[in-house]
Amino acid sequence: MRLSAGALLIHYGNQWKQNRRGENPLCGSDRKMKIIVDAFGGDNAPLEILKGCEMAIKKYDDLEILLVGSTEKINECAKENSISLKKMEILEAPDVISMEEHPNELRKSKKNSSLAVALRALAEDKGDGFVGAGSTGATLMGATTIVGRIKGVKRPAIAPVMPKMDGFFMLCDSGANADCRPEMLVQFAKMGSIYMEKVMGVTNPRVGLANIGTEDTKGDSLRTETFPLLKESELNFVGNIESREIPYDACDVVVTDGFTGNIILKLYEGVAGALMKKVKGVFKKSLKNKLAASVVLKDMKTMAKQVDANEYGGAPFLGVKKPVFKAHGNSKAQTFCNAIGMAMEFVRNDVVGAITDALAKGEEE
Amino acid sequence: MRLSAGALLIHYGNQWKQNRRGENPLCGSDRKMKIIVDAFGGDNAPLEILKGCEMAIKKYDDLEILLVGSTEKINECAKENSISLKKMEILEAPDVISMEEHPNELRKSKKNSSLAVALRALAEDKGDGFVGAGSTGATLMGATTIVGRIKGVKRPAIAPVMPKMDGFFMLCDSGANADCRPEMLVQFAKMGSIYMEKVMGVTNPRVGLANIGTEDTKGDSLRTETFPLLKESELNFVGNIESREIPYDACDVVVTDGFTGNIILKLYEGVAGALMKKVKGVFKKSLKNKLAASVVLKDMKTMAKQVDANEYGGAPFLGVKKPVFKAHGNSKAQTFCNAIGMAMEFVRNDVVGAITDALAKGEEE
Repeated sequence: MRLSAGALLIHYGNQWKQNRRGENPLCGSDRKMKIIVDAFGGDNAPLEILKGCEMAIKKYDDLEILLVGSTEKINECAKENSISLKKMEILEAPDVISMEEHPNELRKSKKNSSLAVALRALAEDKGDGFVGAGSTGATLMGATTIVGRIKGVKRPAIAPVMPKMDGFFMLCDSGANADCRPEMLVQFAKMGSIYMEKVMGVTNPRVGLANIGTEDTKGDSLRTETFPLLKESELNFVGNIESREIPYDACDVVVTDGFTGNIILKLYEGVAGALMKKVKGVFKKSLKNKLAASVVLKDMKTMAKQVDANEYGGAPFLGVKKPVFKAHGNSKAQTFCNAIGMAMEFVRNDVVGAITDALAKGEEE
Repeated sequence: MRLSAGALLIHYGNQWKQNRRGENPLCGSDRKMKIIVDAFGGDNAPLEILKGCEMAIKKYDDLEILLVGSTEKINECAKENSISLKKMEILEAPDVISMEEHPNELRKSKKNSSLAVALRALAEDKGDGFVGAGSTGATLMGATTIVGRIKGVKRPAIAPVMPKMDGFFMLCDSGANADCRPEMLVQFAKMGSIYMEKVMGVTNPRVGLANIGTEDTKGDSLRTETFPLLKESELNFVGNIESREIPYDACDVVVTDGFTGNIILKLYEGVAGALMKKVKGVFKKSLKNKLAASVVLKDMKTMAKQVDANEYGGAPFLGVKKPVFKAHGNSKAQTFCNAIGMAMEFVRNDVVGAITDALAKGEEE
């Protein structure tokens, strides 16, 4: 099964409606869902962000958006580019925190940045979830300090859903926590499983520990200490996974520390990008190759889309009190629209509630 | 510049002859070079190993080979497949250590395995270097305990030369040491630089620390402690390298702990393999695609060869008293022949001597 994020939303969107039968406060009622958007986060803000919001409003009937940023600039950009701001409100924030600035600035010189104001609005229940394409470090800082961690969560994780040969998998953690302890990895596994089950519709998600061999005792001290904890847990733990198997069907949730996860995330992107460039190079090499390329172009594009990480829009932050969804920094309108869709599923399926319950249960044990 | 291992050998083979002018005991003299080969190591032993040895003997005038394994089986296999054993001797070893057996068995029940006997022969100067395609763990165990570490070397590293967009890079360590300390990473950097300079002909190799961001203070505690040590060193340290950049031209020696290195090595292979399968899938999708594929097939194969890790034959073990070269476990004849060629360069350019000198110098400082 291979689904684009869009198809996923339709697929799983219908599923939750059947599954949850109004248990969710947002479900079955007339209440709109309000997503808070950092209009000035990411490389292509505000234009592509606003375009993406417009697309999402058209696509999802129950969506309202609270745009955060300079009211003047938002209105100007919308006017210049004929973007409709229907069903969108604006919350004024004069500043922007850049990718280059230290995340700490969010609590110091950049308290009035669009990101800080947006996350405060989220903490104050002015919306149901947040989406932003700005600095990952600053978003993590804000998610942890402004929105706050779920009780019992040692450290929140950034957990992108990524493409594999067929379908997708979650990488948890992908960079929030460079130094980890075994208990943290077990929490990542729990939180990732809940998200994959509730949002991505994977029944009883298979959890794998990213490691350098498949035998139970393989790996460094972090892995050898984590392995028995995962084995004892109630999770569907399928053991150690070698990175060679990650692009195939090794498991649904790849659990790792944030250092290794970030290496995996970026190498995945790097190798795929380099190889696609090589393939393009072959296609451009001669006139006959160019002609051959034109024949397979459409199928090649479809394939490239399947393996494009942007299809899944970005990464949820797991372990935070409210849904925070990080869109790719280089998001264009379609990717940002996908990210909003994923954030809506994050809200709808009450992942935060499920994680809260699961960890409370873990504490009692 | 992009060279296959074969071209590299020709290219750099000529270079060392000019550069070293007889300084090396093997150079300019009539003395043959003798490479010790584990005839029963790897998935395709002994057939492909023997074929590879035959190819190498034909290719390199000054080469002699000491085959280690069951004399009976070697002769039988050679006879059945019409393989010439010219310029090869056989050293009897009745046993074989399998990929599944624990490396410790090399010192216990498998003292008479082809691998153990071969490494003892190397330690006893019965040859100039060793090549084997058997278990990496067992080879490491034998290299460390039978051949021994160079004085001052904390831990030997397994350091494959890998393909990138254009050319190659070294990954050091790629799996010998799961848990590392900062001083070990600095040694990996030194040893890797020497190999890249002496064997691969890279002038003043650029050393990069595999990390999750480019800023000096990025990473986990191992990285933040290693960074200043590398910066202080005499190495050509170019700073932190994100894994996204590894397939491009980030640096010549990627330094990392063996856990992360093994994750990088296998993910590199996994993502490239999965993507090439996807491309093949597109080519096979329809008759018109098949026809188009036939047009680009030759160029596609040339490209695939450029990015094939097997082109470089395997990985040297750095920090061991004598040259030990690990060929890929799935080596076929050509790959194994390449590995022998790389091992010859490892011997010729006296990498062991240079590492010994560099570490002795480091001790004095």
